[in-house]
Amino acid sequence: MNSARLGSQTVKLIRTPSVLASASAGGKLEGEGPLRESFDYLCGDSYFGEKSWESAESAMLKTCYELALAKARLNSSAINYLFSGDLLNQCVGSAFAAKDSSVPYFGLYGACSTMAESLSLAAIAVDGWYADTVCALTSSHFCSAERQFRTPLAYGGQRTPTAQWTATAAGAVIVTREGNGPYITHLTTGKIVDGGVKDANNMGAAMAPAALETLCAHFEDTGRSPDYYDLIVTGDLGSVGHEIVVELAAQNGADLSKNYNDCGLMLYDREKQDVHAGGSGCGCGASVLAGYLLPKVKSGEIKRLLFAATGALMSPTTTMQGDSILGICHAVAIEKDKPAFGN
Amino acid sequence: MNSARLGSQTVKLIRTPSVLASASAGGKLEGEGPLRESFDYLCGDSYFGEKSWESAESAMLKTCYELALAKARLNSSAINYLFSGDLLNQCVGSAFAAKDSSVPYFGLYGACSTMAESLSLAAIAVDGWYADTVCALTSSHFCSAERQFRTPLAYGGQRTPTAQWTATAAGAVIVTREGNGPYITHLTTGKIVDGGVKDANNMGAAMAPAALETLCAHFEDTGRSPDYYDLIVTGDLGSVGHEIVVELAAQNGADLSKNYNDCGLMLYDREKQDVHAGGSGCGCGASVLAGYLLPKVKSGEIKRLLFAATGALMSPTTTMQGDSILGICHAVAIEKDKPAFGN
Repeated sequence: MNSARLGSQTVKLIRTPSVLASASAGGKLEGEGPLRESFDYLCGDSYFGEKSWESAESAMLKTCYELALAKARLNSSAINYLFSGDLLNQCVGSAFAAKDSSVPYFGLYGACSTMAESLSLAAIAVDGWYADTVCALTSSHFCSAERQFRTPLAYGGQRTPTAQWTATAAGAVIVTREGNGPYITHLTTGKIVDGGVKDANNMGAAMAPAALETLCAHFEDTGRSPDYYDLIVTGDLGSVGHEIVVELAAQNGADLSKNYNDCGLMLYDREKQDVHAGGSGCGCGASVLAGYLLPKVKSGEIKRLLFAATGALMSPTTTMQGDSILGICHAVAIEKDKPAFGN
Repeated sequence: MNSARLGSQTVKLIRTPSVLASASAGGKLEGEGPLRESFDYLCGDSYFGEKSWESAESAMLKTCYELALAKARLNSSAINYLFSGDLLNQCVGSAFAAKDSSVPYFGLYGACSTMAESLSLAAIAVDGWYADTVCALTSSHFCSAERQFRTPLAYGGQRTPTAQWTATAAGAVIVTREGNGPYITHLTTGKIVDGGVKDANNMGAAMAPAALETLCAHFEDTGRSPDYYDLIVTGDLGSVGHEIVVELAAQNGADLSKNYNDCGLMLYDREKQDVHAGGSGCGCGASVLAGYLLPKVKSGEIKRLLFAATGALMSPTTTMQGDSILGICHAVAIEKDKPAFGN
């Protein structure tokens, strides 16, 4: 067998693993936004019936996983691996969600890039015959994230215009080797990029250089230009990061002005909902992909999607110590049809 | 190609990826212990020349990575992927260590199981031709971990007899497809196990049920008995967890009384060094494997090694909320010779 590698950061998947099913879950604000109809489960209670926001996040993620299983008509025993992570310290959102699943578990930390990271490793495991069916899943919760990364909600801290709103949302994507699509065709794995941004209220600017790096690598490695895709989405740069990426991409000869959007700009209505620069959090990109975008690829409304999830590897400790916020972005190409030979 | 899966948790690697080089780094206490000669780099300054313990951990891990590259006679550009994680929130030890490497990066969180998790995913990526050469690396630092998980060092908290000592250490293992061994032959991926332990000062007991689950799954899936191996090591259960595993394994029909040790019992001299129940931390198992065990497999002193790294997915937040400490264990079989057909 020949290597599947293209260029320095991309692999082409030989067997093009297929998305068998996906599901999304969200909270109150997500249920009031423009994508409300795309959610499989919405809960108006920020506690999701639990006693803490951390337990709420696990409950939401577990529900999302079970909904994806139900849509795939599978029991949990049919899943060979879980690839999961979240924003909480020690990734406890994922660990407690998975503890009753009895499925071999790979814990990940990619901040808001986690859905693309988990989907990349899931696709590799399936494509290489190390697994038949796997699940990529991730979540975030506004209340648990604010408490951990910034200030407790009761403190009532003011939010800056560049701040993004961590989505209370989860996404689960079940990937299998043989299927009818959508097909996962290429993976471009990101490097850690230090853009020098130190403002914990401007994640979009911190992640934009990483998004640019990965998108440019994808186009160079695959020989594709941006217009190959019906839609390129980052997740989640918000308005500030989105604008930076469009501008920097143009300077690098890539025209992203036509078919490029950001999950953080899609999940909420910024005119009517008080989310400042847009949505963020692992659950933002995950729920937009799992609930909204993948069904559109399945139906053919979007034939070629490049999902480029971006993560700010932001630690309150190192930020307070004066270090910058490191960014990373992983891109996954998802297509309605298997690409023709040579593509 | 047929699936590489054996049973429900194990894969057999068809091309048996080879360890090209490995390196370990440690601090003062590690340099005073019985494995001092096995370290490639030791530093008596807990700050490793940096201004914070978090930066110190990154500097140690980066040095360890560079030493492994030097031993492999490779530049960083020859590494296709880094698989890395650590104990710090948002895994910043790894992120800052990797930020200048310019290597595509998969961030992991498996607590002290991280070296086995990263080695598993590294082996899959190489075995399946998604990469030619990759590096698994991880670290922990006593001072940054105590501050984050328990109390700041200046507080002078009393340690209980069951407490373990988080190693200030790092390990890096470079894996390639074609080589002269040691060979990575089997991966048994663990499930999250809730043993019900809630004592943050007794990680050994919290992780022991996960170690037992994975070891039993490995023996069942592969048809091997414990005596197939010259050495079975967990990392890091310490004296409490080690004793529990031996006892529970016997109840499950597996005799671990002869060839089973624990990295947390190997790294320090518990008679002379004040480490209570033994060592712990991602860097404990990683440095014992990379610095001490892998050279012994290479030389043939150990022909068959089962490295079963255990992680306590312990969050101070959820522990204070009354939740138990979840455990996980991943096992990697590493052998001097490629196994004969059928093994």
